Amino acid sequence: MLSNKKKYIVNGNSGIKAQIQFADQKQEFNKRPTKIGRRSLSRSISQSSTDSYSSAASYTDSSDDETSPRDKQQKNSKGNSDFCVKNIKQAEFGRREIEIAEQEMPALMALRKRAQGEKPLAGAKIVGCTHITAQTAVLMETLGALGAQCRWAACNIYSTLNEVAAALAENGFPVFAWKGESEDDFWWCIDRCVNVEGWQPNMILDDGGDLTHWIYKKYPNMFKKIKGIVEESVTGVHRLYQLSKAGKLCVPAMNVNDSVTKQKFDNLYCCRESILDGLKRTTDMMFGGKQVVVCGYGEVGKGCCAALKAMGSIVYVTEIDPICALQACMDGFRLVKLNEVIRQVDIVITCTGNKNVVTREHLDRMKNSCIVCNMGHSNTEIDVASLRTPELTWERVRSQVDHVIWPDGKRIVLLAEGRLLNLSCSTVPTFVLSITATTQALALIELYNAPEGRYKQDVYLLPKKMDEYVASLHLPTFDAHLTELTDEQAKYLGLNKNGPFKPNYYRY
Amino acid sequence: MLSNKKKYIVNGNSGIKAQIQFADQKQEFNKRPTKIGRRSLSRSISQSSTDSYSSAASYTDSSDDETSPRDKQQKNSKGNSDFCVKNIKQAEFGRREIEIAEQEMPALMALRKRAQGEKPLAGAKIVGCTHITAQTAVLMETLGALGAQCRWAACNIYSTLNEVAAALAENGFPVFAWKGESEDDFWWCIDRCVNVEGWQPNMILDDGGDLTHWIYKKYPNMFKKIKGIVEESVTGVHRLYQLSKAGKLCVPAMNVNDSVTKQKFDNLYCCRESILDGLKRTTDMMFGGKQVVVCGYGEVGKGCCAALKAMGSIVYVTEIDPICALQACMDGFRLVKLNEVIRQVDIVITCTGNKNVVTREHLDRMKNSCIVCNMGHSNTEIDVASLRTPELTWERVRSQVDHVIWPDGKRIVLLAEGRLLNLSCSTVPTFVLSITATTQALALIELYNAPEGRYKQDVYLLPKKMDEYVASLHLPTFDAHLTELTDEQAKYLGLNKNGPFKPNYYRY
Amino acid sequence: MLSNKKKYIVNGNSGIKAQIQFADQKQEFNKRPTKIGRRSLSRSISQSSTDSYSSAASYTDSSDDETSPRDKQQKNSKGNSDFCVKNIKQAEFGRREIEIAEQEMPALMALRKRAQGEKPLAGAKIVGCTHITAQTAVLMETLGALGAQCRWAACNIYSTLNEVAAALAENGFPVFAWKGESEDDFWWCIDRCVNVEGWQPNMILDDGGDLTHWIYKKYPNMFKKIKGIVEESVTGVHRLYQLSKAGKLCVPAMNVNDSVTKQKFDNLYCCRESILDGLKRTTDMMFGGKQVVVCGYGEVGKGCCAALKAMGSIVYVTEIDPICALQACMDGFRLVKLNEVIRQVDIVITCTGNKNVVTREHLDRMKNSCIVCNMGHSNTEIDVASLRTPELTWERVRSQVDHVIWPDGKRIVLLAEGRLLNLSCSTVPTFVLSITATTQALALIELYNAPEGRYKQDVYLLPKKMDEYVASLHLPTFDAHLTELTDEQAKYLGLNKNGPFKPNYYRY
Amino acid sequence: MLSNKKKYIVNGNSGIKAQIQFADQKQEFNKRPTKIGRRSLSRSISQSSTDSYSSAASYTDSSDDETSPRDKQQKNSKGNSDFCVKNIKQAEFGRREIEIAEQEMPALMALRKRAQGEKPLAGAKIVGCTHITAQTAVLMETLGALGAQCRWAACNIYSTLNEVAAALAENGFPVFAWKGESEDDFWWCIDRCVNVEGWQPNMILDDGGDLTHWIYKKYPNMFKKIKGIVEESVTGVHRLYQLSKAGKLCVPAMNVNDSVTKQKFDNLYCCRESILDGLKRTTDMMFGGKQVVVCGYGEVGKGCCAALKAMGSIVYVTEIDPICALQACMDGFRLVKLNEVIRQVDIVITCTGNKNVVTREHLDRMKNSCIVCNMGHSNTEIDVASLRTPELTWERVRSQVDHVIWPDGKRIVLLAEGRLLNLSCSTVPTFVLSITATTQALALIELYNAPEGRYKQDVYLLPKKMDEYVASLHLPTFDAHLTELTDEQAKYLGLNKNGPFKPNYYRY
Repeated sequence: MLSNKKKYIVNGNSGIKAQIQFADQKQEFNKRPTKIGRRSLSRSISQSSTDSYSSAASYTDSSDDETSPRDKQQKNSKGNSDFCVKNIKQAEFGRREIEIAEQEMPALMALRKRAQGEKPLAGAKIVGCTHITAQTAVLMETLGALGAQCRWAACNIYSTLNEVAAALAENGFPVFAWKGESEDDFWWCIDRCVNVEGWQPNMILDDGGDLTHWIYKKYPNMFKKIKGIVEESVTGVHRLYQLSKAGKLCVPAMNVNDSVTKQKFDNLYCCRESILDGLKRTTDMMFGGKQVVVCGYGEVGKGCCAALKAMGSIVYVTEIDPICALQACMDGFRLVKLNEVIRQVDIVITCTGNKNVVTREHLDRMKNSCIVCNMGHSNTEIDVASLRTPELTWERVRSQVDHVIWPDGKRIVLLAEGRLLNLSCSTVPTFVLSITATTQALALIELYNAPEGRYKQDVYLLPKKMDEYVASLHLPTFDAHLTELTDEQAKYLGLNKNGPFKPNYYRY
Repeated sequence: MLSNKKKYIVNGNSGIKAQIQFADQKQEFNKRPTKIGRRSLSRSISQSSTDSYSSAASYTDSSDDETSPRDKQQKNSKGNSDFCVKNIKQAEFGRREIEIAEQEMPALMALRKRAQGEKPLAGAKIVGCTHITAQTAVLMETLGALGAQCRWAACNIYSTLNEVAAALAENGFPVFAWKGESEDDFWWCIDRCVNVEGWQPNMILDDGGDLTHWIYKKYPNMFKKIKGIVEESVTGVHRLYQLSKAGKLCVPAMNVNDSVTKQKFDNLYCCRESILDGLKRTTDMMFGGKQVVVCGYGEVGKGCCAALKAMGSIVYVTEIDPICALQACMDGFRLVKLNEVIRQVDIVITCTGNKNVVTREHLDRMKNSCIVCNMGHSNTEIDVASLRTPELTWERVRSQVDHVIWPDGKRIVLLAEGRLLNLSCSTVPTFVLSITATTQALALIELYNAPEGRYKQDVYLLPKKMDEYVASLHLPTFDAHLTELTDEQAKYLGLNKNGPFKPNYYRY
Repeated sequence: MLSNKKKYIVNGNSGIKAQIQFADQKQEFNKRPTKIGRRSLSRSISQSSTDSYSSAASYTDSSDDETSPRDKQQKNSKGNSDFCVKNIKQAEFGRREIEIAEQEMPALMALRKRAQGEKPLAGAKIVGCTHITAQTAVLMETLGALGAQCRWAACNIYSTLNEVAAALAENGFPVFAWKGESEDDFWWCIDRCVNVEGWQPNMILDDGGDLTHWIYKKYPNMFKKIKGIVEESVTGVHRLYQLSKAGKLCVPAMNVNDSVTKQKFDNLYCCRESILDGLKRTTDMMFGGKQVVVCGYGEVGKGCCAALKAMGSIVYVTEIDPICALQACMDGFRLVKLNEVIRQVDIVITCTGNKNVVTREHLDRMKNSCIVCNMGHSNTEIDVASLRTPELTWERVRSQVDHVIWPDGKRIVLLAEGRLLNLSCSTVPTFVLSITATTQALALIELYNAPEGRYKQDVYLLPKKMDEYVASLHLPTFDAHLTELTDEQAKYLGLNKNGPFKPNYYRY
Repeated sequence: MLSNKKKYIVNGNSGIKAQIQFADQKQEFNKRPTKIGRRSLSRSISQSSTDSYSSAASYTDSSDDETSPRDKQQKNSKGNSDFCVKNIKQAEFGRREIEIAEQEMPALMALRKRAQGEKPLAGAKIVGCTHITAQTAVLMETLGALGAQCRWAACNIYSTLNEVAAALAENGFPVFAWKGESEDDFWWCIDRCVNVEGWQPNMILDDGGDLTHWIYKKYPNMFKKIKGIVEESVTGVHRLYQLSKAGKLCVPAMNVNDSVTKQKFDNLYCCRESILDGLKRTTDMMFGGKQVVVCGYGEVGKGCCAALKAMGSIVYVTEIDPICALQACMDGFRLVKLNEVIRQVDIVITCTGNKNVVTREHLDRMKNSCIVCNMGHSNTEIDVASLRTPELTWERVRSQVDHVIWPDGKRIVLLAEGRLLNLSCSTVPTFVLSITATTQALALIELYNAPEGRYKQDVYLLPKKMDEYVASLHLPTFDAHLTELTDEQAKYLGLNKNGPFKPNYYRY
């Protein structure tokens, strides 16, 4: 029983974390246009696809089957062998995970129900490249229910849940993915999705841009039949804008990363909970009375500050933007420079998207037992490299928790080696993933069904009306009852009764 | 007895309220484009300029001097008579009010200080039409310190603080305004500002569009020398967009109503406080344990909900927009239709910008002693007209508080007759007005100094950098210390170290 | 001009404030046992009975009828003249006030209803001495409905609402009270209540102890028939404990001041709202971003801190008690010494029950525009006397608001001259008064009906069961549904199904 | 690395959980006096000592050394063999754990420092029986530093951290304890502590009462030299009160369970955090928008409600006590009967101390995926037994998480099989344990040094002054600065400058 228990944090969340982690880490791509060159189409695999992914695990990772899936001959129970997964026999375990996820993804299930009459994706041939998790499986099976044919690869070499991949293969989905692919495996899997005799994709669902990149590079003619690309990640979106700028984007693309609902949930609401979760799981600390400095008061910082204030912490904020700074003031936080409070705080949290926000000099001045962690993006915010010097001793006290010890005995508690706390040491609720997956599904439907000419060879944001639709599909979860405008009111406001309800610049 | 009571909210705040009230009430103009016709340039005075302003009063309203200011001969202590105010002898009282306001408008005072070296408005001849209050006076005297010549009229016939007008006149500002102007007075005052021998304005600062309208109608040639219009109100902005659409806008105009800082302060932060203040001052009720329904979860609704939740009320929300609805859910409010809770709530608050949100049917179903009030805009949200029926008895129990009594004895407590609670029964902190006034000053500077060609004959939003600058000028009030980007960080983020720090679509 | 303004807080709330103000201000009696001597039974009138009551006013204070009520011949409509009020003709106005109060005092109305069958106070002859307000009137008429005969005087020479007194007299209650009594009037009124031919009280309801004192001094034999005293105020309770200690208490007395419900409502819940209300009404300040220091983290301090934190203020706390200090820490407040933050805070609030918490030295170091106010008790917490020195200028800017101006121009904003902000500048919700009045009524019933020997000649706290009963009578206001124990559960917990539910030492 | 990671939730927290868990679970003893008979002194081991402890684990639980410690010959590095632990060689690991704990137990470390001059426990011979954890080790070594000799056994057969026990033994402490003792081992260990030649205890520190019981039964004469008992747990305290009632308590005893600081931290502040932690770790759910019903609004319920409200949940409360019910109302929670909301809530949390609060009938009516858990005491609150029926299927989905599946497919998510969520699925911060341990140390000092006659053969609460002292020792953790009374202020308040500052009945 205990051995079973030990795994419980790990199981089932790995893929989830991955999906978000990489979306987030890639933000820097977007923000550093000057550095894009080195990540251009010439590279063989995106950095994010191979990022070490220490927290990933699965029920089956103790498997001692070392044979490469590529060398195995597997068939599902219907005799189909058009897939490549770790072990088709794990399908039953994966099916249970998918069923549990279905219960928490009501919007996709609602889409399936509505699709019983019409099939908005009938004829769609979708090739996808995402993390392979239970939640993705619900998305894929929904796309199937809507009439689409799908072929799928993993967007990260570590994040696949093998048993989920098996369940999908068992259900007839051509899935090519396993946990622990080599770089060669990675591209082989993608190629197996697109390079099929007698089948050619007409839609792309991508997360990171590797799939899109591969088709551009190997099968550019394929774009003639492709109606559009739906891209989920900041990196991938950035690549698309680059292509567009260079006049090389030859199909419409939908940027689903910047929809309101997704942004608020991925950042504000999700981080409000995961900052507490991440700190507790790693340190068991008490929040009450602790002095905390939060660097950055964007959506993530707002979420962290609200949660910690509510738990009785005393929170200071640093900001570079005077508008966000004024918001911090009005929300009741002292706005300081990091130097002013660095000696007294118990916790330092970075949420800036910037680099070297916490420097070695800051670290030198922190008090004993100060906890340092990053909720922002990638691993640049804390200058961890500066701590790799001979006079400092590193001591791993728990997974994701290092004590860095100064010559005088002072210890700094560094979490997740400066990588994202919320992804490394916390979990992402299925509800958040449901919003993302629903947005993807609607974007595919929109692009696939759009009348000729509505979308050009450019990058589009999801129409606000569909953003509102995603939100409306999630309201039943909360037994929330929306009010409808009367005809008279709609006329008074100059609105369509079904929305969209706000101008594009509305800030929510 | 009651007449004594009616005044109690009023003293000293009148002008403040007016400024905001009308800005807000005019929102409907913007939202009902189909109805704009009847408010076109042909009318003689804007509706808002004459809106009944029951809560307005001033120190001097007991004055029994009935002579019209137009008929008086007045000179200030320097012998100057180029003004028209109620009573120049009240200047000293007004000066004290201005001095107090100065202490709470640090940003304008900072602008004055910076202007000691250079005079960014040297040569500017500004004609203004705004509420005449202590805060406006600080703005005007700041414009003067920056090098401008000013002439000023009131934008509302009730809202002028006579002693402040006197202080300005005493200080040499040609001010033409008093409390209780007739419609004829109103236009006469405006005309006196623009129709001057040997002086022609080159900048317009307007609040409501009446001044702009007057010049368009009477002195169209004047626009040849005018470098731009700065417009504060929703109504005025709407008129400008109409002109622009019709190709009749012949100078650049700056819409300062939609800047981030102004919006957040006027709505979210200000209403978070004024909902409590307005309810307390009128009803002395206890918030703890009360059931409240808030109609609308925009910025105003968010502020109301947050405040009441914090005070221990149980808050329900109604919404038409699924995205805002989902936000309400995540913030911990039950999303309902009004009908579901109307029988059980103790307070109904409207913040929708819509009409007939609370209907007679709702009012019939409310429980005894239910309080009904409006924080949204104008007086359309609650169908007050439906209560003017013979079977219902109205009883005025306090200023701004009516009991409407049903035949069975049930009483509904209607506040401010359905007009804006926050303006009628609460006050607007000077700090909020400071943000608005600073924004106006910066917009004038920007338009006046912009190089030829930067602005065309169109309506512009304040550049984000200036929005950020307004915010930064207010940070010292909170002893808030902004962090500066290092060169390395600015490069990493691809930002200028001095901002702007966010893309235009950033939601804050 | 100012005289007009000074009244603005006052209207309609005067009586309410009075009742609480004096209860509270008297706390010092309890806490300074060493000084009690000078307030011993030998004095002629309690200090609190004559405390200046600057904010008091009533609808009728403009009455120019200068005749003393003692010299008037008045009869009510039934020809009864056993009363002495300002003007019996005001009865109708007072009745309306009483009817409004009845709607917010559901517990007393429920008691009346239950008393339709039995009359638990049948035969009771109650002499009372309290503030005469609409809420007291509801109490008195409830006692009447429960079977008691009542005679009543005012416990403060300023606090009587004349029209309410008139309404009571019109309804047949022998009331002897008016606003603006002289000290001689005060005792004359009390004497008229007790010195009646053919009527002798058997119960005393006192607020401050003056009535009890008078009977002790003048009619000691009366105690032979008196079954008990119910005392509301801290001062009165202290006097009773002194009597008890001295062996001179000759009847049982009930201390209703220390019941749980009353304490929590008078302090924590009421102050949570009144701190905001008091600050807004006097200064119109914005709370967001303000730095505040709250001295004392008892119930009052906890309420103030919670409210201001919720409104976006940054709150510091000072404490002398390490347990309360630790609570402040866990609730998220920096615990400091006043000196550490005195230069930086925008508001100083005292809630200690102590003296000279804010000294001249502190005041000298405060920054310009700092607001100073007292929520604690009496007027000792801020050393206001130290500000009455020649080099400082006092300027009254509004009722209850003084600017104290230093030679260098620095202004301190002193509220209510250091007296209680919540009573001088805010109002007490009827709901809170309802709890107090219900507690008094139940205490009278308990003492009157207690079997011989249950209560000795001592001071008692209200039995917990009755404390719980008071609470239960107020739950319907919130449509709150209590759960009942099953027999099995009651047995398991070793409790009676009807309570009491907690041991006496339970902290709530 | 991953295998290391999997343990991270488990390591080091086991003992912590145990200590609290049993203290808490024993509450029922206190509350069900009628059932005490069966737990009388005749039984051989307390129920709590053998309660299954499923979440316990340690670094060394994979040890395959199956030899009983009783059969081993072990010596520490100084050749001492007066101990019995699992493996003395693990001492170094344990020492590191102790050192980490020391950093978070500043109060005990401060006591050590103060003891460098005087040794308040010089001559004390303390026999202890508690959970053996790093925090206990800090306590024991502090007692040693204060001059005491100690001998120690475990109060629970599962909760000992073997490496900590080894470290203590290595440091010369006679410790007799290991993880996984048999019942026989349990008593053998206790006996080894007290039955020593040439050493007789004069103080007892007990947690659960088993040690006290053993001495009563086997070595009653030992009490002649014993100066007092300090008892930590509710069960043990209850036993002592029983002894006292029966006239059999022959030494003074100190009940440290009911001190203010301990109660507030164990319940309100700790549960405010652990409810979130426990729910997240088991279910990864999102709190925002969830409907939750919390049964019971005592300290634990207040903590749970505050946390969930802050995270955006909609919280309903059930209560049997009208005073607590009214508090719930004023704090903004709808007070309902469980039946009213059982169909709609997403989470049910019990905090009542009662039994069968959630019945099978309730469980039948819950909606699919409803989470049910217990924060109250023991495992009686939810009628889990009623779910062990043939038509329901149990599925263990994670450690501590069961799905109970109805025939129609509905799943209820039951956490920790109805046992305490905060102990089974969360951790207790060291800071909370520090408060408990400090209280124990001070109680020992007080009893040991009390002058003859201060304490009789009875059960005492910790003097308030010491309660305040415990609090004051923890203030430096928060860099909190206490204010000192001036002489004048102390005199005014009638207080000693060093406390105690409040009357005994003060509610905090």
